[in-house]
Amino acid sequence: MPNTLLLKNVRPMAGEATDVLIQDGRIARLTSGQVAEGMAVEDGGGAILLPGLVEAHTHLDKTLWGMGWVPNSAGPRLIDKIDNERTLKGALGIDPARQSARQVVQSLRKGTTQIRTHVDVDTVVGLSGMEGVLATRERYADAMDIEIVAFPQSGMLVRQGTVELLEEAMRLGADVVGGLDPCGIDRDPKGHLDAVFALAEKFGKPIDIHLHEQALLGAFSMELIFERTRALGMEGQVTISHAFCLGDPDTAMVDALLEEIAALDIAIMTTGSASRPVPPVARLARRGIRTCAGSDGIRDTWGPYGSADMLERAMLIGLRNNFRRDDEVELGLAVCTTGGAATMRTAGYGLAEGCNADLVLVEAETLAEAVVNHPERKLVLKRGRVVARDGEALVTAP
Amino acid sequence: MPNTLLLKNVRPMAGEATDVLIQDGRIARLTSGQVAEGMAVEDGGGAILLPGLVEAHTHLDKTLWGMGWVPNSAGPRLIDKIDNERTLKGALGIDPARQSARQVVQSLRKGTTQIRTHVDVDTVVGLSGMEGVLATRERYADAMDIEIVAFPQSGMLVRQGTVELLEEAMRLGADVVGGLDPCGIDRDPKGHLDAVFALAEKFGKPIDIHLHEQALLGAFSMELIFERTRALGMEGQVTISHAFCLGDPDTAMVDALLEEIAALDIAIMTTGSASRPVPPVARLARRGIRTCAGSDGIRDTWGPYGSADMLERAMLIGLRNNFRRDDEVELGLAVCTTGGAATMRTAGYGLAEGCNADLVLVEAETLAEAVVNHPERKLVLKRGRVVARDGEALVTAP
Repeated sequence: MPNTLLLKNVRPMAGEATDVLIQDGRIARLTSGQVAEGMAVEDGGGAILLPGLVEAHTHLDKTLWGMGWVPNSAGPRLIDKIDNERTLKGALGIDPARQSARQVVQSLRKGTTQIRTHVDVDTVVGLSGMEGVLATRERYADAMDIEIVAFPQSGMLVRQGTVELLEEAMRLGADVVGGLDPCGIDRDPKGHLDAVFALAEKFGKPIDIHLHEQALLGAFSMELIFERTRALGMEGQVTISHAFCLGDPDTAMVDALLEEIAALDIAIMTTGSASRPVPPVARLARRGIRTCAGSDGIRDTWGPYGSADMLERAMLIGLRNNFRRDDEVELGLAVCTTGGAATMRTAGYGLAEGCNADLVLVEAETLAEAVVNHPERKLVLKRGRVVARDGEALVTAP
Repeated sequence: MPNTLLLKNVRPMAGEATDVLIQDGRIARLTSGQVAEGMAVEDGGGAILLPGLVEAHTHLDKTLWGMGWVPNSAGPRLIDKIDNERTLKGALGIDPARQSARQVVQSLRKGTTQIRTHVDVDTVVGLSGMEGVLATRERYADAMDIEIVAFPQSGMLVRQGTVELLEEAMRLGADVVGGLDPCGIDRDPKGHLDAVFALAEKFGKPIDIHLHEQALLGAFSMELIFERTRALGMEGQVTISHAFCLGDPDTAMVDALLEEIAALDIAIMTTGSASRPVPPVARLARRGIRTCAGSDGIRDTWGPYGSADMLERAMLIGLRNNFRRDDEVELGLAVCTTGGAATMRTAGYGLAEGCNADLVLVEAETLAEAVVNHPERKLVLKRGRVVARDGEALVTAP
């Protein structure tokens, strides 16, 4: 029986043990049954079955993974890190194709089956980041879905020619238009957001904006995003990443922002940053706001942290949001699974019959234990094909 | 050559490779040299050599480690968690001797060679926690140094008879007098602190007080601690754990507190909590304040997190304090090593000739990489004896 695999003795979402029949890359049946002659079988050993983990915000093009230790020496401001990185990209020889491939393989090992990556587009690197990540996307097409955001990391309007490069990135195959701190970096919030939304409209693509701006400044930029989302009928097509202003202690201000975010069906991405105010995940969930999570940069010139493990990310989100009860810890996991898929509008995501067989097996007693322990992944499937086993990917990186 | 071990090819603090000769539980020589006939040899393979990691704040008596998953259902307030725990201790059969042994073995695996543990003393459990942890201390005397704080978790004055039990705990062998939120729990800050300091004076022992109180309330309690420290000449003998009020945004208030903390040589313990204000580690270091770190409760009725890995703790402290540069990340490591030893006044701690051979080997290129990766420990030595190898302890727990 070609294209058929029987996953025996697994516990979907830590529930009752069952078998899962996979056919043609999809979940065909979720009940225990007889093993047909010659059918490929994997014994799950009672492990928890989760839908593939979702990395909804990272920077594949510029990780230093596998390049040996690079001491970090960037200054304290956001612009210091941006400038430092642009310089080091050339000096260190950070090859976007090679580096994105390395991170993709690391993500696979950890059970991630889809990634949204922001890719730098600027007047120094031009489209080389895009080209590298596009090559990686093609190379790992059978193992990982990669959605690309064309990202003006160094600003759009402050660096002439960037908008044209972003247009070219969209033509090359970017799926999402990126943006960044309309006040803080471009110093022209109206101009920045008009340009971002114009690109989205021109190419009929969604938007994902980095918004590190805190407190009232971040709230102001958000309001400008709301206005444009409504005016252009882009409800449901905008993601705001980081959204630190939603972690402000002024809860009245935050509630007003959340009201609009829910009304406009804007998605929010959080890394659960421990050193910044962060969107309060439980309050977002209560309002039904699509909320996803990401590793952000993994071992890059911005900072040394990151493992590409979205179960560990769920733990960090849990620690940051003071999630202690099991149902709370599970909310952190939801952000790293269904929340990511809802943000990326992934068709067929989940564990129901008919869903994509993007699956991960984890040995733990409960979902909360899977999060706090984040043990090595027992098995990872992409469209029904085994892509990692016992913590090791079956594909390699350069 | 009995009691002699040669550690070959290790890199102290990630420096130049060398050999380390260990004799009678101490570092005898830190240079490469010939291997004498019959000398026991361990090949370090170029791994980083660190002094043993220091767990300066945990609760050995009440971890649920190894008891199967216990769903967390405690209410949101501190007192909810305290009451919930007192009830569950009996209901779940949390045996302090067995549970503390399990955590000690887990800590050993992770390269910790000394622990300060707070042990609950209250009118329900009485001294059973003390007795259990004392048994564990004796059992693992060759593998782990354990310092015991007699800890009034349920309050001192609000529960009649607790002070007498604490006296008895000190007589049984506790090393440090504990205290807890003088305003928040006992509702009588003067009475609580007078009792704590009186016990310390009576037994000639140091003090370690849990202070979760935030903002002005925490600052007020701290001032009462300062007054008593000065009046009783207890400079250098007081630790304040958590000290969340030092993470207050009112930096003028915090600076005034830090001034006094430095003057009175008070030590500060941080877990790097992601969901609470935390002591700013770099600012404490600049003032020369002894700063240590702990896991706090590991998988207990308070919350499900924790691995007893003090390298992972250094990462969490780094994330919380926004440490990115290598020298900053190394500061997080210092808190989990030398800072802990300075707090516990450990004689002979370090990597110099003559120091205790409490050592851990980690495979990493740099200290920062050891922190962010926190790989399995290659070798752990306690007083020159191998107690863990390749991530597994050579002693067992019930």
